[in-house]
Parts: sequence; C-alpha cells; structure tokens
Amino acid sequence: MIDKGIIEASNDEREAGLRADYDALAEQLDRRGIDIAGIKDKIAGFGIAIPSWGVGTGGTRFARFPGPGEPRGVFDKLDDCGVIHRLTAATPRVSLHIPWDEADPADLRAKAEETGLGFDAMNSNTFSDQPGQALSYKFGSLSHVDAAVRAQAVEHNLHCIALGREIGSRALTVWVGDGSNFPGQTHLARQFDRYLDATKEIYAGLPGDWRLLTEHKMYEPAFYSTVVQDWGTNYLIAQELGERAQCLVDLGHHAPNVNIEMIVARLARFGKLGGFHFNDSKYGDDDLDTGAIDPYRLFLVFNELVEADGPGFEPMHMLDQSHNVTDPIESLMVSATEVQRAYAQALLVDRAALAGFQEGNDALMATTTLKRAFRTDVEPILAMARLEAGAAIDPVAAFRASGYRAQVAEQRPAVAGGSGGIV
Amino acid sequence: MIDKGIIEASNDEREAGLRADYDALAEQLDRRGIDIAGIKDKIAGFGIAIPSWGVGTGGTRFARFPGPGEPRGVFDKLDDCGVIHRLTAATPRVSLHIPWDEADPADLRAKAEETGLGFDAMNSNTFSDQPGQALSYKFGSLSHVDAAVRAQAVEHNLHCIALGREIGSRALTVWVGDGSNFPGQTHLARQFDRYLDATKEIYAGLPGDWRLLTEHKMYEPAFYSTVVQDWGTNYLIAQELGERAQCLVDLGHHAPNVNIEMIVARLARFGKLGGFHFNDSKYGDDDLDTGAIDPYRLFLVFNELVEADGPGFEPMHMLDQSHNVTDPIESLMVSATEVQRAYAQALLVDRAALAGFQEGNDALMATTTLKRAFRTDVEPILAMARLEAGAAIDPVAAFRASGYRAQVAEQRPAVAGGSGGIV
Amino acid sequence: MIDKGIIEASNDEREAGLRADYDALAEQLDRRGIDIAGIKDKIAGFGIAIPSWGVGTGGTRFARFPGPGEPRGVFDKLDDCGVIHRLTAATPRVSLHIPWDEADPADLRAKAEETGLGFDAMNSNTFSDQPGQALSYKFGSLSHVDAAVRAQAVEHNLHCIALGREIGSRALTVWVGDGSNFPGQTHLARQFDRYLDATKEIYAGLPGDWRLLTEHKMYEPAFYSTVVQDWGTNYLIAQELGERAQCLVDLGHHAPNVNIEMIVARLARFGKLGGFHFNDSKYGDDDLDTGAIDPYRLFLVFNELVEADGPGFEPMHMLDQSHNVTDPIESLMVSATEVQRAYAQALLVDRAALAGFQEGNDALMATTTLKRAFRTDVEPILAMARLEAGAAIDPVAAFRASGYRAQVAEQRPAVAGGSGGIV
Amino acid sequence: MIDKGIIEASNDEREAGLRADYDALAEQLDRRGIDIAGIKDKIAGFGIAIPSWGVGTGGTRFARFPGPGEPRGVFDKLDDCGVIHRLTAATPRVSLHIPWDEADPADLRAKAEETGLGFDAMNSNTFSDQPGQALSYKFGSLSHVDAAVRAQAVEHNLHCIALGREIGSRALTVWVGDGSNFPGQTHLARQFDRYLDATKEIYAGLPGDWRLLTEHKMYEPAFYSTVVQDWGTNYLIAQELGERAQCLVDLGHHAPNVNIEMIVARLARFGKLGGFHFNDSKYGDDDLDTGAIDPYRLFLVFNELVEADGPGFEPMHMLDQSHNVTDPIESLMVSATEVQRAYAQALLVDRAALAGFQEGNDALMATTTLKRAFRTDVEPILAMARLEAGAAIDPVAAFRASGYRAQVAEQRPAVAGGSGGIV
Repeated sequence: MIDKGIIEASNDEREAGLRADYDALAEQLDRRGIDIAGIKDKIAGFGIAIPSWGVGTGGTRFARFPGPGEPRGVFDKLDDCGVIHRLTAATPRVSLHIPWDEADPADLRAKAEETGLGFDAMNSNTFSDQPGQALSYKFGSLSHVDAAVRAQAVEHNLHCIALGREIGSRALTVWVGDGSNFPGQTHLARQFDRYLDATKEIYAGLPGDWRLLTEHKMYEPAFYSTVVQDWGTNYLIAQELGERAQCLVDLGHHAPNVNIEMIVARLARFGKLGGFHFNDSKYGDDDLDTGAIDPYRLFLVFNELVEADGPGFEPMHMLDQSHNVTDPIESLMVSATEVQRAYAQALLVDRAALAGFQEGNDALMATTTLKRAFRTDVEPILAMARLEAGAAIDPVAAFRASGYRAQVAEQRPAVAGGSGGIV
Repeated sequence: MIDKGIIEASNDEREAGLRADYDALAEQLDRRGIDIAGIKDKIAGFGIAIPSWGVGTGGTRFARFPGPGEPRGVFDKLDDCGVIHRLTAATPRVSLHIPWDEADPADLRAKAEETGLGFDAMNSNTFSDQPGQALSYKFGSLSHVDAAVRAQAVEHNLHCIALGREIGSRALTVWVGDGSNFPGQTHLARQFDRYLDATKEIYAGLPGDWRLLTEHKMYEPAFYSTVVQDWGTNYLIAQELGERAQCLVDLGHHAPNVNIEMIVARLARFGKLGGFHFNDSKYGDDDLDTGAIDPYRLFLVFNELVEADGPGFEPMHMLDQSHNVTDPIESLMVSATEVQRAYAQALLVDRAALAGFQEGNDALMATTTLKRAFRTDVEPILAMARLEAGAAIDPVAAFRASGYRAQVAEQRPAVAGGSGGIV
Repeated sequence: MIDKGIIEASNDEREAGLRADYDALAEQLDRRGIDIAGIKDKIAGFGIAIPSWGVGTGGTRFARFPGPGEPRGVFDKLDDCGVIHRLTAATPRVSLHIPWDEADPADLRAKAEETGLGFDAMNSNTFSDQPGQALSYKFGSLSHVDAAVRAQAVEHNLHCIALGREIGSRALTVWVGDGSNFPGQTHLARQFDRYLDATKEIYAGLPGDWRLLTEHKMYEPAFYSTVVQDWGTNYLIAQELGERAQCLVDLGHHAPNVNIEMIVARLARFGKLGGFHFNDSKYGDDDLDTGAIDPYRLFLVFNELVEADGPGFEPMHMLDQSHNVTDPIESLMVSATEVQRAYAQALLVDRAALAGFQEGNDALMATTTLKRAFRTDVEPILAMARLEAGAAIDPVAAFRASGYRAQVAEQRPAVAGGSGGIV
Repeated sequence: MIDKGIIEASNDEREAGLRADYDALAEQLDRRGIDIAGIKDKIAGFGIAIPSWGVGTGGTRFARFPGPGEPRGVFDKLDDCGVIHRLTAATPRVSLHIPWDEADPADLRAKAEETGLGFDAMNSNTFSDQPGQALSYKFGSLSHVDAAVRAQAVEHNLHCIALGREIGSRALTVWVGDGSNFPGQTHLARQFDRYLDATKEIYAGLPGDWRLLTEHKMYEPAFYSTVVQDWGTNYLIAQELGERAQCLVDLGHHAPNVNIEMIVARLARFGKLGGFHFNDSKYGDDDLDTGAIDPYRLFLVFNELVEADGPGFEPMHMLDQSHNVTDPIESLMVSATEVQRAYAQALLVDRAALAGFQEGNDALMATTTLKRAFRTDVEPILAMARLEAGAAIDPVAAFRASGYRAQVAEQRPAVAGGSGGIV
C-alpha cells in the first residue's frame, strides 16, 4: 500500500549522504578491526515482531485519544503492519491477540501473504471480560479460586494454540493480570499453586514444536500482589512446566532500579530466556517507545544477548508499546529501528579486549569498551540495510510522503475519544 | 435509604462488647493522662469528603469489572454517598466532578438535602475529551501550545466555579494530566509558563471566599514529564497565584520512597497546605483504600497535621480511591474510618514528652512515643462516636444486613465490563 | 550484670497497669474466640538472635559517631547481649562475625554460659580486607576472577564452620559484596558461575546437621551489579547447592516497592526459606530498627510465616541493624520486641474466617481480618511473657534505671568518631 | 608532572585517525547545517571543576580498598588534579573541602600556580566529627537542637569563606547530613527553621561577589528524614536567603525515577540553579562515574542547560564521585570528558526544528531531533579540542604511558584497606 515510487523518491534525496556516512564509518570500523558488511548482514537478518494491537492508538485509565485512521479490525491491522515492514524491512512477523484478532485462519493466511508478513507468538487474553463470556475474570483467571473460571481460561489458551497452529505460529505467550489489591485478599501460596496447575494444563496441550512463554510483571492491573510478579517466580514456572516453557522479559515490568540485563544473563544462563517485549519506561509499565528513555539500558540488554548467543539460543523479539500521542505506525517503525540499533552497537563491542579487561579487573577500560561501541553512530549501517532491502532510508519521512495515514483515515471511520477504565 | 431499624439491630449485637472495650481503653488512657471523651469529641467533629466518582467501580487501562447496582448518574451517586454518611457519620460532604456530575444546581441542592449531605471542592476535568467538545486535550489542556485549547480549559474551570457557587462549594481542585511522553515533546519551561498563565486566569475568577487547590502528581497519564510533577512545582504555582491558592497532596502521587509527611510539614510551615486526597499505594498511583498498605505512614501524616494545627490551618480532607475489586460503598466507609483512626492515634501522642525527647536527642524514646500512640487500638473510640451519632458500630456489617446493594442492583441496570484505555 | 532488684523495682511500678490491660485484652480476645494464654506461650518460646556487631554503634560511609561504652571485643559484646536477653527474655542466641569475633572457642563457650546465651549462625566476612590478609577482596571474593582469591574466601568460610562447630552453631550465613560498579566490569554469567563453584566447595565442607544460608542484596557495596542480587538468583544458588542450602531474607535488601511477603511465601512454598535478617528501611539497606518505618509490612511477613508453619519449617530469625543514633542495647531490645509483636499479631488472625473470605473473593473482609489482628494492641501479652520469665515489663526503663551504660563507659575506653569509608 | 613528550608520542599514534574522523564528522555536520568549529570552540571553553577528595580512592560503609599512590594531603591532591587538567584541558579548577584540605592560603596559591589550576567553590564539612572538635555533629549541625552546635557549624562555614577569599574562590557549597533516623526523632518544622536561621547567618557573612550553594539530598547519612531533602526545600532555602543563594543539583540525590532535567528546568526558570555535582547512579547516591549508567539522562540535563543559556545564567559545574574500583585520576578524566560530550551533543540539537515540532505537537519528530543529536559520535570534536590545547587525544592511554601512578606510588606510602563506617 506504499507505492514503490514513494520510497525511491524519498531514498533518492538521501542516498548520497548515506553513502558518505557509510563509507566514513566503514573506514573508521576498519581501523578498529571491524568489517562493516558483516554487521550490516546481521542487521538485515534480524527481525522484530509487531504486536497487532500496537497499530491502534493506546490509552490510559484516564483517557484515550484516538488518531485518524484507527484500524477497525485484524485485517486493517495487518495492512498497517505491512506498511511498517515495507518501509523498514525489519518487522517480518505479527503477533496476534485473541479474541481481539479472532478471524478465519484462511483469511488471516491470505492477508498475511498479501502483506508479506508471517505470524509470531499468539497472545491470550484472560485479563478482561468479553461480551458473552460465561464467567468473569474480575478476581483472576488461571489462578482463580473457582475451578470453572480456571478451566475457562485454560480453554481459551488452548483455543489460541489451535488458531495459531493454523496460521503458522510456533509459540504462545501467557500474561495474566491475576493478583490482588489488598493484603489478605488472596492466599499467596495457594494462588500460585492454582496458577501452576492451570498452566500445566495449557502446557500439556502445547504442540511439540511450540514454546510456551510466560511473562512476569511487578504490578498493574493488580496493585498489591501479582501472581507472576518477577523473574524469580517466572523461572519457577518455566522449571515446573518443562523444557519448552521459557520466560518472557518485558523491559517495563520490573521494580525501580532493577538491573534488567542481569536478569537476562541469568535466564540465558539457565536456558530459560524465551524472548522480549521491547518498550521503554521511566516510572512503571509506561509502554513508551523502545529506547526513548534509556537507550544505554537497551544496549546493555543486547550486550548480554550477543554474549549469550550460540546454538539453541533463540529468544523471540517483539515490540509491546502503547502509542498514546504519536502515530502508531511511525512509533513502531522508529522502535524497530532502535532495537536494531542496540543490536548493531552490541555487535561492535571488542569482545576480546573486553574479556581481557574483565580478567584484569580493569573496570575503567572494560566499561569504556562498551561505551565506545555504544557511542558509535550506527545509523548508516541500519539505513544501508534498509536501502538494500528496498525499504526506506528514512522510514518516517517516506511514510509521511506516502499519504497513507490520510488515505486510511478516509476509509476507516473516525473514533471518538473518551475516558479509560476509571469510570 | 438505610432503615433505622437495621442499624439499631446491628448495633444491639455489638454494643455490650463495645462498651467493655471502650471502658477498658478509657481506663488505660486515664492512666496515661488522656481523657477519652475529648478524643471522641474531636473524632465526632472530623469529616472526610467523598468523591462522587468513588461510589462507582473503578478500573485500569486493561479492564473494568463493574459490580451490581452501579450508579447511573450524580443522583444515584448522592444516594450512595448518603448511605456512607448514614452508616459512618464521618462523611458529611461530597466532591463533584464536572462534567460527570453536571446537573441543575437546584436539583443537586434538593438531593443533598434529602441525603443529608453538603458539597465539598469542585473538580474540573481537562484530562479526557467529552462528546461534542470543540478542541481535544490529547496534547494538554491548561498548558497546551494552542491558546484556544487553554482558553477552553480555563472556561471549563470557571464553569465549575459557577456551578459550585450555586451549591455551596468553597473550593476548586485542579488536576491536569498535562505533560509529555517523550524527551523533547514539550519545552519544559515554556509549558510551565503556559500553565501558570492559564491558571492565573482561573484564579482571577475565584470568588473571595474560595480556595484554589492545585494537585501535583509524579506521572500518569503522562509518562515522561508532568507539568505539575511534585510539591516543589506545586508550591511555586501556589506562590505565583496568590494567597487563596494552596497545594493539594494526594498520598499516591509521589516518587518511590519519598517522605510524604515531610512534604506535609513543609507546605504547612509555609501556609500552602490546602488539603488531601487520601488513598494508599504500593507501587504508583494505585488508588487503593486508605491505610490498606501502610497505615503507619497515614498516622505519620496525621501526626504532622496535629503538630501544625492552629488558627487558620484548615486543610480539606477527601478520599480519592479506585475501587476495582470491592463494593465501593464498603471501601469508602472503611477508608473514612481509617482516616479517623489515624487522626485519633495522632491525638493520643504525648506531645510534651515527645518534645522533651526531641530536645534531648533521645531518638529511641521519641519514636517509641509515636509508636505507643499508633499501637493503641482506638477502634472503641471511633465506634462509640458512630454509635452516639446514630450510625453503625460496624458499618460494613450493617450495610450488608441492609440489603441496599441488592435493592439498587434491581433498580439500576447491569453494566457490562470491558477493556480500559488500551484499545 | 543487671541486678535482679533493678528489674523487680521497675516491674513493681508497672505490674498493676499491665495486669489491668492484660485482663481487658484477655476478655476481648475471649469474645473473639482466642485464648490469650496460648498466644503468650508461643511468644515466650520465640527467640530472636542478636548479631554480635549490633551492640556497637554503626555508621555510614560519611561518618561514625560512637557512644559511651563501646564494646572492645567479642567478650564485651557478649556481655551486652546478655543484658538484652536478661531484660527481654527474647534473645537467647548470638550470631558471631568472623574475623571480628575471632576467639578461643573454649573462652567463647565459657562466656556464653556466664551470660546465659547460645550461638546462632556464623557469619563470614569476605567484603573487607583484614590486616595481614594475603589477597585483597577489592574486586570480589567468592566470584573473583583469580582462583587464588576465591580459594582464600572458601578457606575463610570453612574456618567459620570449624569455629562454629566448636561453639554449637548449626548454620553458616554467607553474604558477599561481590558485584561491579560499571557496565562491562564483570562478565555477568561467568562471575555467577565462579560464585557457584566456590560456594559449592563451602557446601561440601558443611557438617550434615548444618544449614548454609545465602543472602541476596540488590546493591551496596557494589553499585551497578551484585552477584546475588535478588531472591531469584538466591533460589538458583540454593537449588544448585543442595537440600541444606537455603535463602536468607534481609528485609532491607530489595528493590523499591517490592512485595517482600510474597518472596517469603515463594521461598517457603519451595522449601528454601532459611531465615531472616530483620530491620527496617525507607530508602535502601538503611538497617534501621525493625518495625520503625513500616510495622504493617513486618506483620505481613509474619502472616506468611504463620501460614507456612508446619513440620520441617524452621526459619532462623536474627536482627541485623545499624544503630547510628541510639544506644545499641536499647534499639536491640525494642527491635526484638517488635519482632515478637508482629508474630503475636499474626497469631491473632482468624484464619478460618480469612480462608473463607479468600474463597469468596471478599477482598474487603479478608483485608479487614488482617487489620483487626494488626491493630490489636498485643503489648500486654509481650510484657506479661517477659514478666513471667523474670525479665522487664519495660526493658528500656529498666535498662536506664540499671546504670549499665554508665558502668561500662567507665570500664571501656572512649572511642573517637571519624569519617566512614569515603576518605 | 606529565612530560610533554609522553603526550606528543601518544597523540602521534592517534592523530591521523582523529583527523579522518573529524573531517568526516565535519562534512556530515555541514550537511546538517552545523559548523563543527563552533561546537569545538564552545567545548574548548567549557571547564569542569574537580573535587579535591575525588583523587583519593573512595569507599562504602563496608570497606575501603585504597590503591597505590593515594594522595597524602591537599598538595598531593593538587598534583593529581594538575595531571587531569594537563591531559584533558577540561578541568581548570579544584574545589577544596575543609578541614580535609586545610592549609596555608599562600601555599595553596603557590601550588595552584605550579599545577596550572584555580579554585572553585569551597566545601564545608559538618557531617563528621574532627579530632579536637568541641561539640559533636552526631545529632545534626546547622539544624541541631543545641544553639552552641549550630554556632560551631556556622563558624566553620564562615571560616571556609575566609579561606576561600584568600585563594580566589567565589562560592561556598553547603551540604549537611542533618536529618533523622526515626519518625519522631526530630520535629520536622522546627528543625527546618533552625536550619534556616543558621544558614542565614552564613549568608550574612557571604562576600558580595560570592554565591552560596545549598545542596539537597533525599537520604543518607540520615535514613528517615533529611532536612534539605529535595529541590522543593532547597528552593525555599534559596528564596528565604536571598539573591546570591542558589541551589546545587547532585545527579544522584533524588528519589527513584525522578525527572531530573525537569528540576533543572524549574530552577533555571526561577533563577535558582546554582550548579551541579556530576556523577551517575543506578540505585541511590552511588557516586559512580558521570555518564556510566545513563548517558542519555546526562544529555537531557545539558539539553536544558543549553535551552536556559543566556545572560546571567552561570551554573557551576563540578564532578562529585566516589572512585572505589578505578584509578581516581582515570575516572575523573573520563568523567570530565563525558560532561563535555553531553554538552557537545546538546549543542548539536537543531533547536529551530525542535521548537517547530513542539509547537506542532509532533512528539515523534521532536524526540527524534534530540536522539539524532545524542547519537552523533562527538568524540572527534572533544579529542580535537584536547589536541589543540596541547592535551591528550586519549587521556587514559597517555596517563598509563606516563607511569605517573607508579611514580607517586613510590613517593607516597601505601595505605591499608579496612572497614568503612559500620564498625
């Protein structure tokens, strides 16, 4: 839906500058003993999944302010995701959320083919009630005191797997909001046991080539306790379930000041790092654009990923953001690029030198080695990878030039804003 | 709407036990040189305002799970607030939120008279868009870059004042969500100047016997910067505006670990403590029931209020909570009681002894003096004050016995749950 | 060293009031279906260990301000600990720290007998360098890159075990400050592997009836990463080492806002809760007196302990505080009492009612059930248990009346204050 | 003390690479409409002060591990500071700490001339007791309950001013640890009043061309309350004292998650931003090397400084770090460079474009505009500025080549490690 000519025109204006920057960087990296082409190839092969819900405007409990051209359903969402991949060549897969994206599998496959996309992990939803749902999740889902509610939640997850199998997904991501708002509201140990039992039933229904990713979160929507509150509990779950169960790390789901890259290192070391929900945050689970607040932290996460890389190490990478004040398509394009940027920077680290400094307790030179890689402006590498893949040197500029948003705003009815969950 | 007989029947079961506990406490306090009746009288005269929106079930950006008998509008809300006051004798006033509670002033006055309630501070809403609203608050209200949006927000606040005057309110509370989600999105200094200018226009329209209370909050709904982010900025605003401008402290609006009682002491010392939004929280602005998480912190706040008490010191006290998993009426009754409890405990502090320990740097005995007051079980005082006022010894038990919730659930149509602001 | 007459004189003044309060409480509890004597007996049998280093004045990196009568060595410390137990009957054991308390085992046993004390867990120190030490711990100990440093640290721990065996200890507590101050300074995964390997060597030397308690801490003295940074890593360690390895929880060692009682519940559920270092904190590892900042949190921890109680559940309880502005003896007496208070309150919880509310999703009544127990003033129970054990109704008053501090100040030379670690 | 030949030899190896990178960057910036020479000139004119205490190895309350060649006193410290300036041309002034640096003013002036340095703000110390000091600061200094202690602290500050006048300083920085460790220990309002009164006496003794900088800090060494706990209180102080009183911002002295750049913007807007203590931190006041943890935050602070720049805007810039595991000279050189880096990046921001995006609520392009400046690798600009000033392209490499540390290690006696403040 983005005309090839638009991209070419946008690239034509920028290509000379890019080539100059790329060549200068190539020369500098060459002096540092690094082959720029090798980095560029790794970036070209590195894809980040888009969450289907990310292309709609998000909101808070106070309000939601939709933008023009909000997607009306999963097929509009796939169109938008297709645009993102078309312009960045960085986002080959989409992650669906059920029931929001419930549709005929054949239609989903057809739309995916049309938009040049595949399907990433399936996401279940047992944190809100749907019209016509028999039992409410007000007091929990997989850990609810009532076995019937747990069974309903298990059944929903099995349905997600069934749908996912038909569209080529290979993983199920389970996030629940179960917890409590008051000391005493739930029995902490028994609630966890119920969660484990229910999740084991889901695991029992997992196809042999699938992974089950469980996601921890410190708080929200539960404000006193959360049943999967941190990576420690998440690890226990993955261990109890079995080999194909792994932990998913959302960058915004931790306590203040926590060293997230260390959690990544621990989970990787024990074979339980299943993947990421990338975003950024300053306060809580702010779901801001990846790298918007603390790009160095993102780099340090990728530094651990490059360290841990090896046979069988295949974490899944997905964005998970709430776009409240930007055009979601633009934010997702920029964010996918930020993930690639951190990866490229991490690839530039002189690991032999770093190991030497670590062995010698030369803290200053060790950290300087990381910083040197981080402060290298790798944008020319990312942009060149896009250019060579037929995507845009400057995806946002090309998107704006395309007029896509105005087009879909004509086709898709305007959505009124309103309050969030508070009233 | 709660039958007198219900209350009396409930009290009859409990009165003997209460009198035994009250007498035992009276004797103990007498040994400590404290007259229990004096404490009880102060509690009887201490009222906490109810926010009209508090009687509806709250939610998060993920979901809202309504309960039975959700109020349909301001008049149902006033009925519910009347029940709370009837059973606790602790909540004589209601704080309205405009436009949610927009109604004919005469009707409001009539309903207030019927339910035995008065009106507390008016609350304006420029953090969400209303149907038919000319300009959007997506990018701010009082601090918006567009003068027309600021003017619309000022106009709305002046309207709140006008309505408030007709129903006997004496204060306007201004909370805005204005801020930004990205570094660079707004010019921090200019945005604050715009806020100041607009708020000065509101202040100019404030009746001579009114107060303007501005409320700070660290974050949410804005996740990078917030224009009134802390008490320092709030103080600057109150200082710039003038004498009748004061700061409102919501217990959940601060950074992790912040010493809130110290902020209370500072604002009181400089004449700028305007009042409170009481609630409790463990993580962010969780809006849990007052005292549910850290009752000692609540006591320490009241310890400062008792210290600061004197001529002209008249902070306004209001609950501001989100009841997601409890019956809102029950939570508000318990929370009003918790506020009174903290006040009663603070009144028990032996201030002469405390001052002596402070002068002598006897940290251990100073803190033990506070603890001794805190650990005194003052429930008999609170319950006796209720009994003597014709309210319930155990408000929750009496409420449940009354069948009120079931009654209103029959009259008020069921409300479906759903997602919060995220989609 | 505290004359019996002093205690009796102090108790005589207070006994009548105590008996009145105790009887009133007994009657109230009886109405609630609780036998006060049963609670009192459990309190009488509940001992908290004192850390030998706690009886000296603590300090910060900025300064240390000693008080009069600072203990000169382990034997003075045991005298002070004896006083604490004499006045509270709550602290039957002392936990030694090596090398600070290095001494002839026979002499230690003799002094323990003289002071009526036993020995709790041994504590090793590989976080600071001792005079004459061959290799420095500047860059770590059990996880150091140099095998010789690791061997030295292992050897020191084995020495602590050997000494402990001779004085009747049954556990070794291992806390290390190992970590890093800069991203990149250490290889996070390899450092943890080195730690595991070294700790396995210690575990191999553990007597069959001993436990090895490892302690996690978020940060300090390392300020970027810490090798045992949280309970998740601590659990992995205990799991890797074996059955007699368990986790020790220090209340001040967690990230801001973390739900500690949930960690307690998780470790208990998986058989890895080894014990506690009790203290309180508002910001970081402040090491303030137990219950001084958030007494309700302490109660919630004990609520989990009472829930988890059963055969084989034997967490070790120790105070670990830094007394910078109080008399350490007084602070330790008050703190031991606070631990008992939380335990007594937790014992008062109506667990059958609580379970019912939890099963019925009655969050309000569930939390009210906890609060009712918490707000019960159990001081008469604690004081009566002390009185019956021949200890003081008011330990601080009796201590001050005894003149002990002045006495030891005459015997022990004054210590000059000075800077802490900064210069 | 660093031979010119050493620097030249080190630069010779690096100059060709630097010139290539500089030229490439110049060309890129030229395309972006920026003159690289203008940026370089501003960097060359931008000096950061070194704290005299920073050249010694720091420590924590647990331990201190000195390195070789620890400075024995202020004259050794000035030698070390001279080396830092010699190699970076970025640190022309030293900030003294009294009494640690007490010396004959004439000798100080002579040494400063010899080392090519000047003197920045004077720092008083009333947070630790000195040998022979009449009264203790254990329970506070400027806010102590005892007027005699307050007078002693005031006197000390006046002495710092007097000494500073003789050596050409123009500012006094006042940081006190006064606060409390327990609720109730101090009367929060009265303590602040005492602080204000005492500080007014210092202000009264301030020369007309001096500034008084007060510094806030959330906690440590006091762990419940701190008398100057945040920027709000700090602002009140500066306002009460008068025009020459301003606030000093230490990057590590805030609550978790606080938006520091916003505080900078507020203080600048109201004329009260006096200067900075630069460092970085992940948890508390970790005093890590500037930019080591969150370089983007440092950039955002400088973004505000560039925005606020104008006549009369003259914040003072100083490093304030604790070097526990690195060579202090190396850390200070790298940190000074990091400050310059953030400044250079902030100068690259296209402010006209940024203002346009802000006016248009184009959050995505606004933040991208900042990011584009931040990700530009400005190292060639910093290095070229050093080269042109006769300093080192790579200061750490040149320092290591110089053998300075080994030299001073021979002259200065080794210092034993030991415990910090805890025992």
